Amino acid sequence: MTDAVELIRAKRAGQVLTDDDIRWLISGYTSGDVADEQMAAFLMAVCFRGLGPGELRAWTSAMVESGERLDLSSVPAPTVDKHSTGGVGDKVSLVLAPLVAACGVAVPQLSGRGLGHTGGTLDKLESIAGWRAGLSAAEMMSVLRDAGCVICAAGPGLAPADRSLYALRDVTGTVDSIPLIASSIMSKKIAEGTAALVLDVKVGSGAFLPDVADARLLAQTMVELGAEYGVRTSALLTRMDSPLGRAVGNAVEVEEAVATLRGDGPADLTEVTLALAAEMLAVAGITADPAAALASGQALDRYRRMIAAQGGDPEAPLPQARQAEKVTAGQSGWLRRLDARAVGVAAWRLGAGRARKEDPVNHAAGARCLAKPGEWVEAGQPVVELLADEVARLPAARQALACAIEIGPEPPDPAAMVIERIRS
Amino acid sequence: MTDAVELIRAKRAGQVLTDDDIRWLISGYTSGDVADEQMAAFLMAVCFRGLGPGELRAWTSAMVESGERLDLSSVPAPTVDKHSTGGVGDKVSLVLAPLVAACGVAVPQLSGRGLGHTGGTLDKLESIAGWRAGLSAAEMMSVLRDAGCVICAAGPGLAPADRSLYALRDVTGTVDSIPLIASSIMSKKIAEGTAALVLDVKVGSGAFLPDVADARLLAQTMVELGAEYGVRTSALLTRMDSPLGRAVGNAVEVEEAVATLRGDGPADLTEVTLALAAEMLAVAGITADPAAALASGQALDRYRRMIAAQGGDPEAPLPQARQAEKVTAGQSGWLRRLDARAVGVAAWRLGAGRARKEDPVNHAAGARCLAKPGEWVEAGQPVVELLADEVARLPAARQALACAIEIGPEPPDPAAMVIERIRS
Repeated sequence: MTDAVELIRAKRAGQVLTDDDIRWLISGYTSGDVADEQMAAFLMAVCFRGLGPGELRAWTSAMVESGERLDLSSVPAPTVDKHSTGGVGDKVSLVLAPLVAACGVAVPQLSGRGLGHTGGTLDKLESIAGWRAGLSAAEMMSVLRDAGCVICAAGPGLAPADRSLYALRDVTGTVDSIPLIASSIMSKKIAEGTAALVLDVKVGSGAFLPDVADARLLAQTMVELGAEYGVRTSALLTRMDSPLGRAVGNAVEVEEAVATLRGDGPADLTEVTLALAAEMLAVAGITADPAAALASGQALDRYRRMIAAQGGDPEAPLPQARQAEKVTAGQSGWLRRLDARAVGVAAWRLGAGRARKEDPVNHAAGARCLAKPGEWVEAGQPVVELLADEVARLPAARQALACAIEIGPEPPDPAAMVIERIRS
Repeated sequence: MTDAVELIRAKRAGQVLTDDDIRWLISGYTSGDVADEQMAAFLMAVCFRGLGPGELRAWTSAMVESGERLDLSSVPAPTVDKHSTGGVGDKVSLVLAPLVAACGVAVPQLSGRGLGHTGGTLDKLESIAGWRAGLSAAEMMSVLRDAGCVICAAGPGLAPADRSLYALRDVTGTVDSIPLIASSIMSKKIAEGTAALVLDVKVGSGAFLPDVADARLLAQTMVELGAEYGVRTSALLTRMDSPLGRAVGNAVEVEEAVATLRGDGPADLTEVTLALAAEMLAVAGITADPAAALASGQALDRYRRMIAAQGGDPEAPLPQARQAEKVTAGQSGWLRRLDARAVGVAAWRLGAGRARKEDPVNHAAGARCLAKPGEWVEAGQPVVELLADEVARLPAARQALACAIEIGPEPPDPAAMVIERIRS
């Protein structure tokens, strides 16, 4: 079969496509023989019918083969990347990459930008004066050798078919499909050439897939795909019901990441970061104590070297918002819930995120969680501080928080941040 | 909600859209605010989720309101149109429209062109030298007054949103969805202004929806939609396992239609035509005997007037194919099956149909069924005659018939052509 309509109809009917069918479809889409509207219909059929294991492999391979593959074999340390499915206040990469580098792992991390209520690591780092996300392959290798870690944007030559498909999924309501998410993430990681990979799959209201069963299936799918392509992959399912840490936005998250590298970070962020670090060391086969690397200041040193190697000034003052407003507790009691998605939407509306991928972000905007679930608050005590450059943005952000704060007579049950570990 | 992605996601999740949502979507698509790829994803979601009764009404209304509506109130007879869901050898309209006109009904029939293995009434009539499918509204009214019937193309102003949507469905594998088919057909009929409508919903291998349950649901959906818009609508489910009559193509079907108007038509075609005529007279509230109108030559006279009024010469010789080849019976026995879809595909490959809507058709090409199911054939006796202008087209057509002919020791069970009647 080499007709797009036949392939769409076959997927719609729940038939299994051959490797050749899928290769033809992806290369036809890249070359323009398969139109946007045809691929959109196919993607929606995949949302309903899924992709079988063979189809998923063929789909992932076709995306990897659409571009170049990096060769990291000259790096004189085991390479391990980390990928998060995205959360609110998720500044883990900023702490984790230098921390693990300080333990002797090389971290070649290709990151993304935020879209919607979750932020992007590159947007956060761009709060730092002079810092550059776009590096050539040679520059990336040089930073990786100097600092032991690098966080940068994927070049345009890496899985270009995934880039086009992601843009199409974004406008056609076909983003949240487990096989499409799994193949999109894994094709970039396979092309990037990392030897191993740890996935942070978020679960809860602020996550892409709030449900634990969906998150587990996504994690298993990616771990299996990694194994098939020789990338040692494991995944942690971690909680994303409340923002991670206290800062949500860009500059405020950099500030909190640096505090965490100094050993003054919030407990939940530190807990998740150390768990992911242990997992990265395990897949790299290295024995080291990440808590000690944090306490000794070695991780902070690696961070400064990485930022400087990418043109940034780690000592430069960060942008500050011109407007601030506090949202207070309506009653006294235990803070039981501070909804991650709601805080993410608030920060987004304040300008920290973007609605369309071509929009700029405001680096100063965001939110600070002045209280966290499990803490006692008095009526009138500030719970969230909203930060924006324009006062006109505050009301819509306040509205997003309308049902986000739950206060009650009992404290919430304590829960570990790591729900589950998934290895192949 | 006025965001295409939100509407796509809502339909994907099985939510019910409001009238405003649907109106916004259709008018946004017509104006270009909703992109082809977004509408394609929405249509595929409709294929899986369907449209609820309110959504279907809103969808149909939006398509009707996208263009002009004809006013047939000045026609001095009850107006009844007929629509077939499409079959192989389906030349019923050519006989039925003049036959019913001869009984005192005005038939304003907007017809289409063929796509794929089923033929189109306009393609067939264009075999006649000089005949024009494209009429202005004034010309259409004039032919309708002169002959009592008119068969022509829908003008570009009639339900233009349906025209764009149909073209999109054609390339995105989203044609065969019951609500999308029903709203497409009914929006054109409502805009056309007919007072009543009889639907010929085909069932069997050569039909769009082979399964009787699907065909029944489609018929009920259209009958209900008609009633809601004040168009008295009824439907007959009729058999389409074998080609209707013996001729499949364009000129050969005109020839057979004229023979039928002379009273020399094949039994199955005559049976279906008379049943549909009786139904059209019933919805028009007219008492007349269509068999008598056929026998008296009045129907043939109306046919000649209609063809001449549209610029055609009813006496002109029809195009003849340059090549002919006979497919013979492999054994002696009762012809039990002559598969409609296979014969349709053979005629299509011979040039009688088109693969893309911009392709021309060959008016001389097609097939003649020299034997029909229920007849005894001797080994070596011709069963199908293939007609084409180019000898190179014959092998692929012959191949389409490979499994189409079934001969056995017992005759097939006789079956009435009309399976069921559905009225509101």
